[in-house]
Amino acid sequence: MERCDALARASDEPGRLTRRYGSDAMRQANAAVAAWMRACGMTVRQDAVGNLVGRFGEGRTLILGSHLDTVRDAGKYDGALGVLVALAAVERLQESRLPPPFAVEVIAFADEEGLRFHSTYLGSRAVAGTFDPATLELHDAEGVRLADAIRAFGGDPEAIACERRRSEDVAGYCEVHIEQGPVLEQLGLPVGVVSAIAGQSRIEARLEGEAGHAGTLPMGARRDALCGAAEVILAAESLARGTPGLVATAGRVDVSPGASNVVPGSAALTLDVRHPEDAARRSALDALSERAAAIAAERGLRLDWRVLHDCDAVACDPALSALLARAIADAGFTVHRLPSGAGHDAAALAALAPVAMLFVRCRAGISHNPAESVSSGDVAVALRVVDRFFDLVAERFEQEER
Amino acid sequence: MERCDALARASDEPGRLTRRYGSDAMRQANAAVAAWMRACGMTVRQDAVGNLVGRFGEGRTLILGSHLDTVRDAGKYDGALGVLVALAAVERLQESRLPPPFAVEVIAFADEEGLRFHSTYLGSRAVAGTFDPATLELHDAEGVRLADAIRAFGGDPEAIACERRRSEDVAGYCEVHIEQGPVLEQLGLPVGVVSAIAGQSRIEARLEGEAGHAGTLPMGARRDALCGAAEVILAAESLARGTPGLVATAGRVDVSPGASNVVPGSAALTLDVRHPEDAARRSALDALSERAAAIAAERGLRLDWRVLHDCDAVACDPALSALLARAIADAGFTVHRLPSGAGHDAAALAALAPVAMLFVRCRAGISHNPAESVSSGDVAVALRVVDRFFDLVAERFEQEER
Repeated sequence: MERCDALARASDEPGRLTRRYGSDAMRQANAAVAAWMRACGMTVRQDAVGNLVGRFGEGRTLILGSHLDTVRDAGKYDGALGVLVALAAVERLQESRLPPPFAVEVIAFADEEGLRFHSTYLGSRAVAGTFDPATLELHDAEGVRLADAIRAFGGDPEAIACERRRSEDVAGYCEVHIEQGPVLEQLGLPVGVVSAIAGQSRIEARLEGEAGHAGTLPMGARRDALCGAAEVILAAESLARGTPGLVATAGRVDVSPGASNVVPGSAALTLDVRHPEDAARRSALDALSERAAAIAAERGLRLDWRVLHDCDAVACDPALSALLARAIADAGFTVHRLPSGAGHDAAALAALAPVAMLFVRCRAGISHNPAESVSSGDVAVALRVVDRFFDLVAERFEQEER
Repeated sequence: MERCDALARASDEPGRLTRRYGSDAMRQANAAVAAWMRACGMTVRQDAVGNLVGRFGEGRTLILGSHLDTVRDAGKYDGALGVLVALAAVERLQESRLPPPFAVEVIAFADEEGLRFHSTYLGSRAVAGTFDPATLELHDAEGVRLADAIRAFGGDPEAIACERRRSEDVAGYCEVHIEQGPVLEQLGLPVGVVSAIAGQSRIEARLEGEAGHAGTLPMGARRDALCGAAEVILAAESLARGTPGLVATAGRVDVSPGASNVVPGSAALTLDVRHPEDAARRSALDALSERAAAIAAERGLRLDWRVLHDCDAVACDPALSALLARAIADAGFTVHRLPSGAGHDAAALAALAPVAMLFVRCRAGISHNPAESVSSGDVAVALRVVDRFFDLVAERFEQEER
């Protein structure tokens, strides 16, 4: 917990925690974690994209990790907690007499939130071998190219492809992360096993009607784009309320002309739609686009429905997750499986290896917010679970060798 | 018509016409109109709030005018046409051999639309003596106080009270304006006499819920401010559709944080509600605020319902309007009287003097839109009507003197 506090002081902005890819604050955070890694006997390197990689032991590799970048005005635990729990678990391994029959790598990924370049999983994609070289051409708000930012951070854009691990070398990936939702708190449980990382679609729906004078255009003659958008927003909410596991969010709506005395001529809204099952997400999207088209037709509006981003759900590995579940049970807690509505580095790593995730209860489900809070008791439980998980993975290795 | 085109090029935004109170574009527009005023022998000054005032002749004053500010992405005729028809009418007076037995002032009001400060009739209220000093504390979107904006525009907030005219000095106010509605076009008439200006209320409704992660916050745990706003928007539309004479418009909605992957924590919307009868408007407002409170309560949102502006219906002066009607008949056209759904500077001037308004037909009733269109033939009719109106006012002055 002290290390979480210490890392939170490495920020790009005074008075609040913001840590962008490649910034001085990120450099400080990597330096602090590197020192802690070395202190528990790990060999440490910063890879070609800027991930900090600490390695302990010999053999096939079990990777643990999470990310050290943050959103703007972030909490102290999203990302950092997973790196530091992994590090503490390695410290216990070092103290134990018998080295495990596998190597452990702790990776602090350099960019998961994508705050600076609006990218996704820059760090973990490099390791998984799914890094898209086209993203090197992204620019940040100051006009800096990602390729140049990587070099400035001590990385090498040309060498990112070489960071790809071979699947046969990696036994699995396990990530500890705060839940960022209220489920574990409601159940009174300190930790839970993630069943899947929800798929996500992001839509921009633009409705075009006709602007007019708010005082003189009779109601019957209007083609009000904002009223149409309001119906779409409520349709999305209603569909999600009625569909188990579905969440749908209209996060913004831009109205034009946007004056109080003008009937809105156009309105653009975003929809973020997620479900742990791809088929359910897709049928929700179909239903929503149909409903939006019907609303537009009824109101004489033109509808432009664009899917900006579409990302399938990632199932966690049943065998690896079963070991995590057994570790929870062995620690004396009820095992609860829950999907993750948020994306995580584990989603990228799933392209390389079996993945498992352990969620830690967070207060009131608040995240991406300085009020983010985790209890030290729950973190102690997470540590015990990871310790036991190491034992169980070791047992499986030994069984496989027999 | 050429002058309308020229003024339309003075804009705050490239490619479309937007002229906010106190902007460079407003400065350019005032400079152009001032030059035209001087060219026809008027003495010109910019008053303490920024209105451009041109005076011609001696004696009690007949004021003609309209406004030079616009909505966002405006048409060329709303406001500007009334100023330029008045100016052209003064040019004819100058050319005529006999000066009229009254002074004519043409006032180009500086702020009628209220785009920048969400104010109403800033300009005409200063002249009518109903300017509320509390409005000096309003702030624009950039945080600039109105008092400072007035100073930056060359005005003087302290001196606004001195712009108030004495009723005994003012014979009346006459405003030419495009109809901004479809009635005259449907009747096949170039001009009409306004019977009354509809009452108008402008509300800002702010809904406060709680922001949260769009992926992890279950639908049942949300307090989504934008969904609440969407319900209020549709409730206003539905009430107006079901109430003859009522129009209600949500022209803008501001969402915070306003990111596609964050559940909206707050949403502020504007409502513009109008009816030619004050009692009907008031009962609609009561019904809407009750409905909004119920929506907020049901969703666990906090509602802040503020009436920013409340303006009763204004009847035009029967005697002055009768002269306008006679002028139309003398020009050979059928006289049609119609209410105005839009507010006009005449509504503010009615506190000072008898007011009359002449509406000019506009194509398809379209206004507050770049497609706003007026025929030069109809403008010629309006000019003939104002010329004749001057004669009839002169006759009345002479009768009164006998």
